[in-house]
Amino acid sequence: MATRREFLAAAGVGAAGLAVGAGATAFFEHDDGSSSGETVPFHGAHQAGIATAAQDRLVFAAFDVTAATKGELRELLHEWTRAAELMTKGLPVGPPAGDKNAPPADTGEALGLGPAALTVTFGLGEYIFAPGRFGLSSRRPSLLRSLGKLPGDELDPAKSGGDICVQACADDPQVAFHAIRDLARIGIGSAVLRWAQLGFGRTSSTVSTQETPRNLQGFKDGTRNLHGDNAEDMNRFVWVGDDEPQAWFRGGSYVVARRIRMLINAWDRSVLSDQENTIGRFKLSGAPLTGHREHDPLDLEARGADGRPVIPANAHVRLAAPSTNDGAAILRRGYSFTDGIDAATGELDAGLFFIAYQRDPHKQFAAIQTRLGSHDALNEYILHTGGGLFAVPPGIRPGGFVADGLFA
Amino acid sequence: MATRREFLAAAGVGAAGLAVGAGATAFFEHDDGSSSGETVPFHGAHQAGIATAAQDRLVFAAFDVTAATKGELRELLHEWTRAAELMTKGLPVGPPAGDKNAPPADTGEALGLGPAALTVTFGLGEYIFAPGRFGLSSRRPSLLRSLGKLPGDELDPAKSGGDICVQACADDPQVAFHAIRDLARIGIGSAVLRWAQLGFGRTSSTVSTQETPRNLQGFKDGTRNLHGDNAEDMNRFVWVGDDEPQAWFRGGSYVVARRIRMLINAWDRSVLSDQENTIGRFKLSGAPLTGHREHDPLDLEARGADGRPVIPANAHVRLAAPSTNDGAAILRRGYSFTDGIDAATGELDAGLFFIAYQRDPHKQFAAIQTRLGSHDALNEYILHTGGGLFAVPPGIRPGGFVADGLFA
Repeated sequence: MATRREFLAAAGVGAAGLAVGAGATAFFEHDDGSSSGETVPFHGAHQAGIATAAQDRLVFAAFDVTAATKGELRELLHEWTRAAELMTKGLPVGPPAGDKNAPPADTGEALGLGPAALTVTFGLGEYIFAPGRFGLSSRRPSLLRSLGKLPGDELDPAKSGGDICVQACADDPQVAFHAIRDLARIGIGSAVLRWAQLGFGRTSSTVSTQETPRNLQGFKDGTRNLHGDNAEDMNRFVWVGDDEPQAWFRGGSYVVARRIRMLINAWDRSVLSDQENTIGRFKLSGAPLTGHREHDPLDLEARGADGRPVIPANAHVRLAAPSTNDGAAILRRGYSFTDGIDAATGELDAGLFFIAYQRDPHKQFAAIQTRLGSHDALNEYILHTGGGLFAVPPGIRPGGFVADGLFA
Repeated sequence: MATRREFLAAAGVGAAGLAVGAGATAFFEHDDGSSSGETVPFHGAHQAGIATAAQDRLVFAAFDVTAATKGELRELLHEWTRAAELMTKGLPVGPPAGDKNAPPADTGEALGLGPAALTVTFGLGEYIFAPGRFGLSSRRPSLLRSLGKLPGDELDPAKSGGDICVQACADDPQVAFHAIRDLARIGIGSAVLRWAQLGFGRTSSTVSTQETPRNLQGFKDGTRNLHGDNAEDMNRFVWVGDDEPQAWFRGGSYVVARRIRMLINAWDRSVLSDQENTIGRFKLSGAPLTGHREHDPLDLEARGADGRPVIPANAHVRLAAPSTNDGAAILRRGYSFTDGIDAATGELDAGLFFIAYQRDPHKQFAAIQTRLGSHDALNEYILHTGGGLFAVPPGIRPGGFVADGLFA
């Protein structure tokens, strides 16, 4: 458990307006829970939650902004930053039991759970920069424009888009839930939840030291993912560079989300060789069909005795490979989800909530998805049912707030 | 990781018909994941997952049986038992990559995740025993009859009832998901999913050594819960005893589930004293309003300087207390859930998936809920939106299957 001194010290950093009084004291005197889990630094050149080793659990939310002025939007981002900063330290956003005659400043369900490696990552949707809305149209990140309807997109408007996205990742799902819930509460009057998605298990390794997990198709997913601990790759593929005309946005990134429903019954009825040819890898080992071990390179030229490519022309790994996409690669950070039963079919509504970071969503995600959505053998077994595109501002300085450069 | 010898040995126990061939061998030769987590014994006098220390994650599913005959129902329960037995050992239900020309016998997403303390607990709904259906009406557990519409029930039929319930609890959510998914797959032709609920975090301690977790209202929940390691309480309140006329059902229990939606925005706007008076406990410490520490006894007689009860007449802890309910107590095993946004209100659809075990659902859950549903101050902040009542057969003998006594 953080000491009271740590709480007060933390609360003093960029937390103007936080009333730290009897309530906060009472909290640390009464609560006997113990802190657990790592703390991921909140400040830095880039927002946490991108290059960070993928945590186990996710809650992803998109908000519509109801604030009417640029000043109110700025205040919302300032308040949210302050709250995120505290929560990522495992601290409540304010006294969870201060004034008996006021609603608690923190909803309390994460008390005692510790930081749990929480990261809170913010992104801005295109409409924030619409002419005439907040007077920000001249500050729009240069590549934040609609991807259009991509092949395979059947996006439900109720699970798509939004003005601001918040990705909360943590090793404890209640810590991730608490972050979104308290941001929603703090935002009342300025922002309303548009959609949210719980992800119960990570399907990506995002640093070189993590093992590749399996997705709900039973395959290792993301063997060739970019890694946050490879600075060269991150600079080349993920972080917006000095060529960005909007100086405030340099060091940022773009995130694309897709709620990819898996048609589980169809997949489960398909035979093993079809599954492996669909993906282009062996199911158990994760090795490419041209190799023996998971990390063996793909040999896209190899042909079998019958003269046909060993990795089929429409296999997922072939179509998604950088060499097939002019070298384009993306940093994936996906999570398995399930939302109960699909009433229409009676099967589990489950799949992969796909999240990808990149410096150019048009030349990276959209280009790859255009190829995949048109030809990928996997299309028979998946549906893209929701998602969005957001510009992810650069990292936050101590004392600053997310996207503060936008208002400078 | 289990050795191949262990897999073969395990597969040999009550697993007639499981083809253990090249595929299983390949699995253990190629997979480099390591087993993790505890194994909870599957066999015993009572089903696992009731007295067991509450695991962190839940997937709860209800199935409708489509099998037409008693023999087919028996075969379904036999097959499901065999699969559950393997999965609780951290083993696949069959070779996940055997015959290339057949669908894999296991869907594969839990490979390498270990047993993760998985328990799979089965219950039977009332309609299994309907006259003229399977010829089992004379074998119906004596207290398995509808609870009727209880005060507070606004149960959505699409999230309620069912012929068979399966509670999968594990410390890894993908292990719990895999259990339900593979049982659904194995059941094709004999049973179809009716509804399912993911629970992301436990809200109950079910043994004396577990700390009390917080629910999404931010309060410690279940401080006075029954404990699975207290044999006297379990025999008195949870396990069906020798007075049960159906000999096959002795040692069983009854489970009541309720999907309790919390009206989060209303709760978060309420002031601390209202929250504490609603529950009857202090929010931070979890102590009763008449005490200082979480486990201090409730003093339901205490009155304040104003002459009014310190624990209000309509406080949740007062109305739920055994002393208010003729001594009735239940073993709770609840989980927090969230299912995204409620489209009607724009707030998070989240709450507590309540699960309670008892030996008499009428004198225990229904009696308590009748009092709570009519008078509980908490009703302003919750909705019961789904659930069911199921008879939970006694434990499974090695070589036997769940409810085998029903077919003897």
